[in-house]
Amino acid sequence: MIKPRTPAGVMELLPPDQIAFQRMLDTIRRNFERFGFVPVETPVMELSEVLLTKSGGETERQVYFVQSTGALSKAGDGEGVPELALRFDLTVPLARYVAEHEHELAFPFRRYQMQRVYRGERQQRGRFREFYQCDIDVIGKDSLSVRHDAEMPAAIYAVFAELDIAKFTIQLNNRKLLRGYFEARGVADGELQARVLREVDKLDKRGAEYVRETLTGPEFGLAADAVAAILEFVAVRSTSHEDALARLAALGEGNESLRQGVAELREVLELVRALGVPETHYALNFSIARGLDYYTGTVYETTLDEYPQIGSVCSGGRYDDLASHYSKSKLPGVGISIGLTRLFWQLREAGLVDSASSTVQVLVTQMDAAHLPQCIAVANELRHGGLNTEVVMEPSKLGKQFKYADRAGIRFVVVLGEDEIAKGTVTVKDLRREDQFEVARAELARTLRVELEQSRAMK
Amino acid sequence: MIKPRTPAGVMELLPPDQIAFQRMLDTIRRNFERFGFVPVETPVMELSEVLLTKSGGETERQVYFVQSTGALSKAGDGEGVPELALRFDLTVPLARYVAEHEHELAFPFRRYQMQRVYRGERQQRGRFREFYQCDIDVIGKDSLSVRHDAEMPAAIYAVFAELDIAKFTIQLNNRKLLRGYFEARGVADGELQARVLREVDKLDKRGAEYVRETLTGPEFGLAADAVAAILEFVAVRSTSHEDALARLAALGEGNESLRQGVAELREVLELVRALGVPETHYALNFSIARGLDYYTGTVYETTLDEYPQIGSVCSGGRYDDLASHYSKSKLPGVGISIGLTRLFWQLREAGLVDSASSTVQVLVTQMDAAHLPQCIAVANELRHGGLNTEVVMEPSKLGKQFKYADRAGIRFVVVLGEDEIAKGTVTVKDLRREDQFEVARAELARTLRVELEQSRAMK
Repeated sequence: MIKPRTPAGVMELLPPDQIAFQRMLDTIRRNFERFGFVPVETPVMELSEVLLTKSGGETERQVYFVQSTGALSKAGDGEGVPELALRFDLTVPLARYVAEHEHELAFPFRRYQMQRVYRGERQQRGRFREFYQCDIDVIGKDSLSVRHDAEMPAAIYAVFAELDIAKFTIQLNNRKLLRGYFEARGVADGELQARVLREVDKLDKRGAEYVRETLTGPEFGLAADAVAAILEFVAVRSTSHEDALARLAALGEGNESLRQGVAELREVLELVRALGVPETHYALNFSIARGLDYYTGTVYETTLDEYPQIGSVCSGGRYDDLASHYSKSKLPGVGISIGLTRLFWQLREAGLVDSASSTVQVLVTQMDAAHLPQCIAVANELRHGGLNTEVVMEPSKLGKQFKYADRAGIRFVVVLGEDEIAKGTVTVKDLRREDQFEVARAELARTLRVELEQSRAMK
Repeated sequence: MIKPRTPAGVMELLPPDQIAFQRMLDTIRRNFERFGFVPVETPVMELSEVLLTKSGGETERQVYFVQSTGALSKAGDGEGVPELALRFDLTVPLARYVAEHEHELAFPFRRYQMQRVYRGERQQRGRFREFYQCDIDVIGKDSLSVRHDAEMPAAIYAVFAELDIAKFTIQLNNRKLLRGYFEARGVADGELQARVLREVDKLDKRGAEYVRETLTGPEFGLAADAVAAILEFVAVRSTSHEDALARLAALGEGNESLRQGVAELREVLELVRALGVPETHYALNFSIARGLDYYTGTVYETTLDEYPQIGSVCSGGRYDDLASHYSKSKLPGVGISIGLTRLFWQLREAGLVDSASSTVQVLVTQMDAAHLPQCIAVANELRHGGLNTEVVMEPSKLGKQFKYADRAGIRFVVVLGEDEIAKGTVTVKDLRREDQFEVARAELARTLRVELEQSRAMK
């Protein structure tokens, strides 16, 4: 006997949670499609040579390699890196996909992709080695208007508004603005900016004093007034649309990079509003930098106002060139990603996952084997009427069948006794409303559909 | 520059085909849920020790093993089998899942699972190393009524009727009946029966004479009349429900195994009919055996009547004990599986995939940057009205925008000129019906929704 168990670092769910998870995936997908993104799926295995274009780096050390049994037995040869590896994000596969199919795709290319990715993370609570990413990106050929940068917050808003987890704020910044501001304070080198920003990232954890001392100390040697300006700058959070515009105006003319950043952010803000995002749900946050060697313009983070400890639930930004390793074409893009596995785990920890209702909407009970034909006929009618229906195939005590429905989160339980069969009716127990009614069989499917639609509308 | 490409043996689709594939997945899922199955997803990586419970075997030789970079660098130690492996089907993970969560699940446990599986297949056209399986199973604890065996054809019928690929027939047989019949002809040993059935499987390819000669020849040494009886038996195909019952009756009393098989098939046939499967879509086929060391009762195959070369598009059967390697509990079950990747590939080869329409339903064009606010407002209204909408964010020639919509399979193109803006209308081009009309903006979303629903209803 082998002990049945999963490897460390994966999330496997029981049906009620899996259903809740699936509903979140569906909501995300529906909204991605609503905004005109089309689906792409890529193989979980990529050629190592293609996947690992960069030398070294944190991600590479976390890569999972794949070998068939045949290849394993030859592994003694010390051949080095195996031929295949599991993707560690959806961005590299997107780059490969777009470069590979460049002449078959229409640009701007708008794709969504919702698949699992793999990272050999150190074992730690809440860290996953297999997790879903739900990404959208718009890729241009040669150029891509900054206007597309405004579509990301619009899509994020639609997704999280419908997920209805908690009040959220989409936070915006721009790497050009950040760079321009830093340059004007004497931090001109990109590498140095990156290091300064990493220190700035510690503000929440270590406090302003610690960060100020580090930046003016021997390691960085920045002037005290420059550090003061930088700390003031990164503290900026806008409180309304007008406030955001005022914050941008307050930055003044500055250098070329700052001017560009301000102009882009201003256009993005105006379009985000035009696309219907309420101003309560977006804000400037000048401390946001994101992946420093990748993003080049607008950057996004999304936080749940009442759950700051969860961190960003949806992040992304604008990049200059998606596929420089695979194509001579310049392919600028903008995109965002939701790490759904980790988010789901965090929401569940915070008690915010509602896994009460099953995909099964109706249970047709069976009290007597003689009634099976009628039970099946009722199930046929319900299924034909669009209701997800389970029928009890073996008679048992009715109490046991109710308990099963209750435990599984099935809302409606249909009972067919001698009486009901004689009258052409059924008795329905609504376990959600703790209500019971009798209805003509011909009306059953329609009646339950109406009940379900009303509950959905009331939510 | 690295050549962007996928590994051999995987199927990656361009968006139009991906959309068609996704619609098939959605149809399958909707019908699985309609029949009261709940979703389960398992990690793609399982512990090798758990996954590879059987010694040797074809599947084991095809397994992909997974190693993180850290584990690889230690591989010189000749440690043998890596800790992790990719699942090669959904049945072993189901067994592990049910055994692991036995006390948290309600039985009969009805789950569907639609995920990719991995096999290091020899490279060959139409053979995939990564492919989707779409499975349903009902698992009992200690026992499971044969009545559940009838739910499989009912769900298969619903799926393939809605997929609307081509006329199909669900073929039924029963391993007990098969065993009983063989035993009565002097082929009592299970292993021998398996070998005889493998020869019988060659009927289509090699012809009856070849098979007859092999079975009466030195290798098998069966009596000529036994072989004649077996060949007559495996040729049985019923032509209607009544014919199926008559074929069963014609088998006579026979031995215990035959009697059991006949009784089970009879009950399954009656319930399949009661569950609404038209008798044109199911039939007995006494030649079907399926995985010989696994299935113990009812077995299924599904074929497309006009495309026999495609083979079975959905197969499965009844098994005695799902998880004997992981649990002392007896967990009998019945299930079926659709290998969607291979099926999609075959359908595409046969020209049966319709990839004409995009998930994007409306393209809002833009002729003049000055109109962008109106274009966005119209897009907001359409999205709010439930339509998947892309809005052109940068003005370009209208002809180019139409060409883009046409190529992408977007049905409706919305045009907003000075005139329309002044009148509060839009012009809509329906690229499917090659029709054009003007409509008040307030009516736009409703009008297009009605058009889409009508097309769906007409299909």
